[in-house]
Amino acid sequence: MWGGRFAAGPDAIMEAINASIGFDKRMASQDIAGSRAHAAMLAATGVISDNDAEAIREGLLTVLSEIEAGTFQFSTALEDIHMNVEARLKEIIGEPAGRLHTGRSRNDQVATDFKLWVRDQFDAAEAGLIALIRALLTQAEAGADWVMPGFTHLQTAQPVTWGHHMMAYVEMFGRDLSRVRDARKRMNESPLGAAALAGTSFPIDRHMTAEALGFDRPSANSLDAVSDRDFALEFLSTASISAMHLSRFAEELVIWSSAQFRFVALSDRFSTGSSIMPQKKNPDAAELIRAKIGRIFGANTALMMVMKGLPLAYSKDMQEDKEQVFDAADNWMLALAAMEGMVKDMTANRENLAAAAGSGFSTATDLADWLVRVLKVPFRDAHHVTGTLVAMAEKKGCDLPDLTLAEMQSVHAGITEDIFSVLGVDNSVNSRLSYGGTAPKRVREQIARWKEALA
Amino acid sequence: MWGGRFAAGPDAIMEAINASIGFDKRMASQDIAGSRAHAAMLAATGVISDNDAEAIREGLLTVLSEIEAGTFQFSTALEDIHMNVEARLKEIIGEPAGRLHTGRSRNDQVATDFKLWVRDQFDAAEAGLIALIRALLTQAEAGADWVMPGFTHLQTAQPVTWGHHMMAYVEMFGRDLSRVRDARKRMNESPLGAAALAGTSFPIDRHMTAEALGFDRPSANSLDAVSDRDFALEFLSTASISAMHLSRFAEELVIWSSAQFRFVALSDRFSTGSSIMPQKKNPDAAELIRAKIGRIFGANTALMMVMKGLPLAYSKDMQEDKEQVFDAADNWMLALAAMEGMVKDMTANRENLAAAAGSGFSTATDLADWLVRVLKVPFRDAHHVTGTLVAMAEKKGCDLPDLTLAEMQSVHAGITEDIFSVLGVDNSVNSRLSYGGTAPKRVREQIARWKEALA
Amino acid sequence: MWGGRFAAGPDAIMEAINASIGFDKRMASQDIAGSRAHAAMLAATGVISDNDAEAIREGLLTVLSEIEAGTFQFSTALEDIHMNVEARLKEIIGEPAGRLHTGRSRNDQVATDFKLWVRDQFDAAEAGLIALIRALLTQAEAGADWVMPGFTHLQTAQPVTWGHHMMAYVEMFGRDLSRVRDARKRMNESPLGAAALAGTSFPIDRHMTAEALGFDRPSANSLDAVSDRDFALEFLSTASISAMHLSRFAEELVIWSSAQFRFVALSDRFSTGSSIMPQKKNPDAAELIRAKIGRIFGANTALMMVMKGLPLAYSKDMQEDKEQVFDAADNWMLALAAMEGMVKDMTANRENLAAAAGSGFSTATDLADWLVRVLKVPFRDAHHVTGTLVAMAEKKGCDLPDLTLAEMQSVHAGITEDIFSVLGVDNSVNSRLSYGGTAPKRVREQIARWKEALA
Amino acid sequence: MWGGRFAAGPDAIMEAINASIGFDKRMASQDIAGSRAHAAMLAATGVISDNDAEAIREGLLTVLSEIEAGTFQFSTALEDIHMNVEARLKEIIGEPAGRLHTGRSRNDQVATDFKLWVRDQFDAAEAGLIALIRALLTQAEAGADWVMPGFTHLQTAQPVTWGHHMMAYVEMFGRDLSRVRDARKRMNESPLGAAALAGTSFPIDRHMTAEALGFDRPSANSLDAVSDRDFALEFLSTASISAMHLSRFAEELVIWSSAQFRFVALSDRFSTGSSIMPQKKNPDAAELIRAKIGRIFGANTALMMVMKGLPLAYSKDMQEDKEQVFDAADNWMLALAAMEGMVKDMTANRENLAAAAGSGFSTATDLADWLVRVLKVPFRDAHHVTGTLVAMAEKKGCDLPDLTLAEMQSVHAGITEDIFSVLGVDNSVNSRLSYGGTAPKRVREQIARWKEALA
Repeated sequence: MWGGRFAAGPDAIMEAINASIGFDKRMASQDIAGSRAHAAMLAATGVISDNDAEAIREGLLTVLSEIEAGTFQFSTALEDIHMNVEARLKEIIGEPAGRLHTGRSRNDQVATDFKLWVRDQFDAAEAGLIALIRALLTQAEAGADWVMPGFTHLQTAQPVTWGHHMMAYVEMFGRDLSRVRDARKRMNESPLGAAALAGTSFPIDRHMTAEALGFDRPSANSLDAVSDRDFALEFLSTASISAMHLSRFAEELVIWSSAQFRFVALSDRFSTGSSIMPQKKNPDAAELIRAKIGRIFGANTALMMVMKGLPLAYSKDMQEDKEQVFDAADNWMLALAAMEGMVKDMTANRENLAAAAGSGFSTATDLADWLVRVLKVPFRDAHHVTGTLVAMAEKKGCDLPDLTLAEMQSVHAGITEDIFSVLGVDNSVNSRLSYGGTAPKRVREQIARWKEALA
Repeated sequence: MWGGRFAAGPDAIMEAINASIGFDKRMASQDIAGSRAHAAMLAATGVISDNDAEAIREGLLTVLSEIEAGTFQFSTALEDIHMNVEARLKEIIGEPAGRLHTGRSRNDQVATDFKLWVRDQFDAAEAGLIALIRALLTQAEAGADWVMPGFTHLQTAQPVTWGHHMMAYVEMFGRDLSRVRDARKRMNESPLGAAALAGTSFPIDRHMTAEALGFDRPSANSLDAVSDRDFALEFLSTASISAMHLSRFAEELVIWSSAQFRFVALSDRFSTGSSIMPQKKNPDAAELIRAKIGRIFGANTALMMVMKGLPLAYSKDMQEDKEQVFDAADNWMLALAAMEGMVKDMTANRENLAAAAGSGFSTATDLADWLVRVLKVPFRDAHHVTGTLVAMAEKKGCDLPDLTLAEMQSVHAGITEDIFSVLGVDNSVNSRLSYGGTAPKRVREQIARWKEALA
Repeated sequence: MWGGRFAAGPDAIMEAINASIGFDKRMASQDIAGSRAHAAMLAATGVISDNDAEAIREGLLTVLSEIEAGTFQFSTALEDIHMNVEARLKEIIGEPAGRLHTGRSRNDQVATDFKLWVRDQFDAAEAGLIALIRALLTQAEAGADWVMPGFTHLQTAQPVTWGHHMMAYVEMFGRDLSRVRDARKRMNESPLGAAALAGTSFPIDRHMTAEALGFDRPSANSLDAVSDRDFALEFLSTASISAMHLSRFAEELVIWSSAQFRFVALSDRFSTGSSIMPQKKNPDAAELIRAKIGRIFGANTALMMVMKGLPLAYSKDMQEDKEQVFDAADNWMLALAAMEGMVKDMTANRENLAAAAGSGFSTATDLADWLVRVLKVPFRDAHHVTGTLVAMAEKKGCDLPDLTLAEMQSVHAGITEDIFSVLGVDNSVNSRLSYGGTAPKRVREQIARWKEALA
Repeated sequence: MWGGRFAAGPDAIMEAINASIGFDKRMASQDIAGSRAHAAMLAATGVISDNDAEAIREGLLTVLSEIEAGTFQFSTALEDIHMNVEARLKEIIGEPAGRLHTGRSRNDQVATDFKLWVRDQFDAAEAGLIALIRALLTQAEAGADWVMPGFTHLQTAQPVTWGHHMMAYVEMFGRDLSRVRDARKRMNESPLGAAALAGTSFPIDRHMTAEALGFDRPSANSLDAVSDRDFALEFLSTASISAMHLSRFAEELVIWSSAQFRFVALSDRFSTGSSIMPQKKNPDAAELIRAKIGRIFGANTALMMVMKGLPLAYSKDMQEDKEQVFDAADNWMLALAAMEGMVKDMTANRENLAAAAGSGFSTATDLADWLVRVLKVPFRDAHHVTGTLVAMAEKKGCDLPDLTLAEMQSVHAGITEDIFSVLGVDNSVNSRLSYGGTAPKRVREQIARWKEALA
């Protein structure tokens, strides 16, 4: 693009750095919606005539249909979407077009358009998160009692259930949902009518346009209304945390898909193969989802840096806001959809999960807890006894439940037959009945709670 | 610190990279509060005896008083605050100390401590934001009708009022307040009792400890409870946006304090002087506040990067969370307090503000609006007429209100005496009565609304 | 784009997240250059026949001409630029196309293409930086002895010269140039022939392809060759520091263009006006340049986060590298060109600069230095005397050179007529002859040094 | 720290935000070295007397010894290290202390101190990187011919050698080394004598102080000298890329240490255990190293954001530079040392590596290459034949070398006995003799090259 830059004259360079129509045309429908609401209000308050308002309304609908049909000619010379629409409106309806801009300016117009666009994305994110949560609930329900290793430090720690693991992500994406809803509510104030920065002397009714556009109220300070990009930053930070959750799950899917783990099989649709190694399946989608946190948080960084230290009110720096949010929104939605698809399609390898869950003396903690609970052995002593038994099993090349009672009693005389009721992975997970614990019973309660919440 | 590294053996290096007591001792009171709540619950549910619980309670109070008195000996070999407290407890009360850890682990313990600490900081931020807003309201009330230039692109655009400008920041810090409250509510779930990752088989009551510690409920998934750092990230992103607002105001204060602007005088207390140039006053505090966005958003970046791609559940990477949040919290609170102090102390230079507000034909828009509103001149024509009059005034070396009616009528015959009612900065600001506009009447309404909200 | 996502089936989602042809087609000419070099080498080493090599060469030239003519049909189903080119080559020349891929894979191919593209951008950055430095040298030469205020904390500190201030930026952009050259040299190793990750058993000659493509040598480890994106990260960090320099200069231009400063007039070509306020000129280009650090450092953040924790060798995450670098490169080049244009066009307001330089007792330091140098007064005492004289002048409402000798002697008896030789801004700047100082003589030496360096 | 903020008066808040002595005391030895060089130069140029210079020299040595002995009383009221040292010097030697500050200011002094500190860290990083590379070379030499799986997408792709994998990291850390050296060279210019911003009228010799402090030359523009923090940013971006390399290796070590992989055993010294599960070993050090990229790149983000848009020359914002660089440097050095220790101590599990290398038909590519090379089968056909053979082996439950010649010939009649020479992992790696390939012969050449380079 700028390879030929050195030949470009200053005018071409200024146009290139200044024009935003290349990207802000994505806000065309929001721009027209805002103008329609504004024109209707101007007529209702007597600022313009009903005839003018009607002409504007008809003209804007024509412009919208041209844009939707792809026949609209966007012009870089007209800089941005607002001027492009206005110029075309003037071609269509003539003089009344000039009255549309009464009591507003490009500063509040762009803030309104952009807020409407971002609000749509909050709604899309809400839908995408709910769809993903539903897919996870389906997996959790199917495998509420399938045992698998619970890891810390990627080392087997204690057995957990597949359903429990899936539900951990439901909690994460559930918090994302909560953040989306809070942020959407906070940002739902209309900047329209703030004008350039000071408000206007025309007797406009900002509550009316706010209502028409689905805003909860007009923003309360016109300087702030045109200077504020908090809604974009909060969108980006919310998206970033959500992308972090996606990256964690994606990382697990990549590891679980390795030949060494084989915990899950991803579907062909979300993998790529090799023409030469038919058994090979690369988890491309998972890797790409894992990477999305980069560009989304990169966009957050970009806009935060742009906004740093800007004096009030509008500065042209703020034109850099849209591309960042557009790209982050596209990629967040795409990553949510891809993850939803993968979760729906993936198959847990129950045998491998169960085998891995039982290895590594993963129920040693259960044994120690039994000593504490039943024999009232102090915690530290219980740990010592357990360590000795694990060492004994390791030496014998067997697992803990394979030791005989006599062998166990040689380490601690008080041990009884009852101990075998806590060894073994199924016993282990079934025993963890504390609220939020991994026991299938608890997992099913949480599934039910979430289903109700989303009903 | 690591200058002597090359002589350090691996053990010293491991201790240095692994130990957290150097910073997590800041959570000592939270750690002890968590342990007290846990011990009381263990007794209430019969997991430990009342005698043990009482010994633990007394012992923990002793430990707390030692820490508060500064006589506690922190040990790096004991790695973290949890082990330091537990070891000292054992010295004091002996065996019962070993029962405290029943039904919990370091993973849920550290999550609980850290959440309690962060929750305190949300409360501190709320108080700091309210104090700053009050200081701004006081400035706004005093200067609700003082005119000053409203800038776009740092170019004079239209006159606004000092009160209106102050209230723009009230809106910004008000949104910060709203974010703080939402985030605090969302994070207020207790991880205690999630144990290592899977919950526990002891019959603990997580609702009881949650309530004792002021949490709204226990967290619903034990894997998530020990893996989640959303609360820290949301604290950091909320602080970052707030720091961005602070940076904008600080930038304005630096510019306004320059010899070229002289819009405000900062107090000596928040400036530094020069022994050689007594008239010189450097806005050091404003500059330092402007810079704080760096380290606060840097901390956000750091923790986001740490969390990227971590498999469940706990990984040691997550130990890097605390120093970032500690530093960001300290600096956010400090910046809020410093800004509050500066706002309280600063003096607006009303003469300079008024003079600047009137320069640059800042009421040209009012003239154009009058033509549209009164003479029904179409917008574009009104702009043309106004441009001609501005050029005429510029040529004469006077301002718009200094033109005679005859001169104005020579450009547009319909202009009447009434036009002078909109020229001049006071007329201009008084006319901008749209909701959220700069008119003193509107500004005072917003001040009243905020006072009521904070009452 | 993803509004309609919910209707999209998994296949559409996978294609959307997986395909890179939408952006990597920018590397078409690099891809073809790499393939041509590879084919020629395969023939030279006897791996393929001369006839096949010739067919491939001709075919690739045809493909290139189709792409340049805009007639090439890019296919998303073919995923990326490599497959698009290869598929078209096969259509044109048939079977020999299949032999081109011998001894290489997509992993080394994409690394080669991307390195060639980034290398071109380093070259473009070098040219852009040199052009900007030349424009600054022209300004510096014209105003080597124009006095202006030197600021610290945006407070007048001491007089400096316009040339000196321009040359400060020459030093900054000169360091950028140095970083560009170092980075280009470091990255100039050819990955071609590293194959998928392990090298190849075909007797290829990687030195030959490296030389043909202008690389200094082949990379020394095939695993690293396909896993490395340091060159992209170093490009981004170099661009980020340069964008920081641009942001500082842009900030100064915005402040200097304000009505309060009026230090410079930017040309109409790099400003935007207002139809209603003809005297108004918004420094849009400067503001946009100031903002570019956001997206450039945002891209740096994005790619750093993507690369964090990726195991060797190639992972699909790395596909996220290109869009970040493309966008950062475009915007860096654009910002350099726009700044060059602005610097060429801008006009310093010498009168305002000189007036501002002399205000604020800016030569108080010179007076103190004279006391130290000539009267051997200790530094602290000299400061005290100077402070007293400044207070006296302030009281009289005059500047330091306007005090009489008698008045001065009333504060310190040793002061002589000679003191007036250091007061006044011209005396001040001329006296600062230390190496790198602001004296016009020193400034001209530095201009000469830079001109020679760039000759 | 700021819990008690609300009681703190404005003066306490200003002191807290303004004072830097809490952290900049780390630059005490650099500060004293700079002052010694400056004093010696002042005497040599006749600006101060030899007696004064001698008194200053002696006094500074006394101050240094007090600081080193830990007896120095740092005062927050004196703000920073420069004032603390100067005030103590005055106590010790009286009046001559006041002459030390001739021809310099705090602005160039702090730049000098900080550059000297950063330069030391570049040297420490060089040493740390070389030590780590040596540890990797030792591992590579021991295992130059040990086969292991080469992964793409964490899926087995082709066999590689342990030595080759280790050498990939040697290349990465080698580039870090190269960046460290370039950056150190670029930053090695002395700001001392730039004074506040404009240079000085005293006849100082900046070349002399530059030489005394080991700088290559004095910086060429005094405005730039006090405004420049490129050296800190380049340190941080260099450290960030290096931390990214560390994070990749650390991730591999965590995965390789899992029960599912068991590719390596980390030493006890760099792991933590469990009192209850003696076989468990958590790779804590690797996880902490993986996380360090967060705070190091966070520091980069912080300082980049601080510097954005700062007008020349010094602004107080820049005081935020040191803590970021201190923390990043400490953690980079620590991570390098910990990684070096881990690499030295770790043991590759050759059996597991070899077994994993051979699984998954990892030599299918070798088979296809043989068909191309020996039978001149076109690439696509060769892939088809290979795919059929892999499917046959999979069905039989055996690996490729276990197929009989007859079975192979049933798929492609031209296959001969010779094909077995390329199957099997040892044959595979030995055949990859292209420059930079995984063949032990090539790996050993690279080890030799690096040993020579570091000799």
